[in-house]
Amino acid sequence: MTKIGTNPKHANQLATLLYCADYRGHYSHGLNRLDMYIKDVETDVTAATGNPVILKEGPSTGLVDGQNLLGPVVGKFAMQLAIDKAKQSGVGWVVANNSNHFGIAGWYAMEASSEGLLGMAFTNASPLLVPTRAVNPALGTNPISLAAPNGQEPFVLDMATSAVALGKVEIQHRRGEPLPPGWALDAQGRGTTDAAVGMQGRLFPLGGPEETSGYKGYGLACLVEIFCGLLSDANWGQHIRKWKTHERKANLNNVAKQLDVDPMKCV
Amino acid sequence: MTKIGTNPKHANQLATLLYCADYRGHYSHGLNRLDMYIKDVETDVTAATGNPVILKEGPSTGLVDGQNLLGPVVGKFAMQLAIDKAKQSGVGWVVANNSNHFGIAGWYAMEASSEGLLGMAFTNASPLLVPTRAVNPALGTNPISLAAPNGQEPFVLDMATSAVALGKVEIQHRRGEPLPPGWALDAQGRGTTDAAVGMQGRLFPLGGPEETSGYKGYGLACLVEIFCGLLSDANWGQHIRKWKTHERKANLNNVAKQLDVDPMKCV
Repeated sequence: MTKIGTNPKHANQLATLLYCADYRGHYSHGLNRLDMYIKDVETDVTAATGNPVILKEGPSTGLVDGQNLLGPVVGKFAMQLAIDKAKQSGVGWVVANNSNHFGIAGWYAMEASSEGLLGMAFTNASPLLVPTRAVNPALGTNPISLAAPNGQEPFVLDMATSAVALGKVEIQHRRGEPLPPGWALDAQGRGTTDAAVGMQGRLFPLGGPEETSGYKGYGLACLVEIFCGLLSDANWGQHIRKWKTHERKANLNNVAKQLDVDPMKCV
Repeated sequence: MTKIGTNPKHANQLATLLYCADYRGHYSHGLNRLDMYIKDVETDVTAATGNPVILKEGPSTGLVDGQNLLGPVVGKFAMQLAIDKAKQSGVGWVVANNSNHFGIAGWYAMEASSEGLLGMAFTNASPLLVPTRAVNPALGTNPISLAAPNGQEPFVLDMATSAVALGKVEIQHRRGEPLPPGWALDAQGRGTTDAAVGMQGRLFPLGGPEETSGYKGYGLACLVEIFCGLLSDANWGQHIRKWKTHERKANLNNVAKQLDVDPMKCV
């Protein structure tokens, strides 16, 4: 990352995040993803240098312009601001726009739990999740994370709101094995167990088809989209660029902990 | 409710909630449940009169003693406190202990959205959800709710973190129809489609069995338990009385919006 001009501190934050993802067993979000971050910086789609800017803040809330920097740089900045506010007022809720792919959400939540706080982190993402009764993806795998301090080892929840992340479909595909029902859909919006078809990127929400409550996973993905895309007034849902394309800025939105901000302006 | 001595204002709050649940189509949580609230007050397991007490508060947080009053009385009190704090500091997060069954979580979330805020509400509940790889229920159907203002009609998410609520199993049972796979388990911890077996009260978490990511629903139920049972220092998980038993106080815990409080004291 530094060879292609990335600020060494930023490169270090990215390295720490990727290492942490691999260490915790999220191999799909570890060094496996380095090529994507390199391509984003090489093509100037992500900024290699600069600093996030606080656009607006209150006793418990903040809005951050990520200045199109690497996701982990923006996410860490936003979470540190949320931690500072939580220590003052009891809760800190910070939203960032103009950000990028930020890796595992749990890394940010654990920043807070390591300081004795409950930490939450969310991000929207490129469309891969097909809403109940729909055919095409309209939301990202929009993760939810909570870390709670618990003596030696925190409780950490870190989950995509789709049934599975695309990385799990990739693994079945490489192995030449079928998908369990309830993971992916075909281009006609029907469930599929064909891993090659699943690779086209149509994932069921958590819960799978309608009869097993897939609309709940869809609702949770909407919750994340409201916290991230809408509250930060940036790209959301189908307006986000396609996964692993680099023709334009991602302008993603990461939320660190709790916030208010006037939601009316976003809807 | 007033005939058995319930404070008329409290009876009115309960009535409004039950009516709202039916109106919104949550028939399992509407007037259908009135007999349970009556039994709780008749047997003195729930207090008919009194007021919730604020035990502790900060600029954005509050801890409420529900004084064993009806769930809707405690929940409404806690949400109003959260709304007041959110208007001051940007976020309000209030936890209540010593509470009771509070009906649909969405009712509380919508109290906030009707004032132009994002509203969230959570509650723990009697054990019905069987964790992944377990045989017996260890957590409630622990709902998550978010209401977001949106012009005329708010966005409302209001969902149990189990695959389905027990009420849905009851409906299949009355109809004499089988359950879809992924709803319920038998006493050996295997999935079942027999509605009579499902009535024994062993529900899959959202996501169903392990291969379709049921551990995510289990994780979300834990998130709710941390926000409610642990943060309020009251009953949690298997320590909560069995569903529809009345031999002792429920001491449930409802969370209205965002909070900090020192989580270390609870774990």
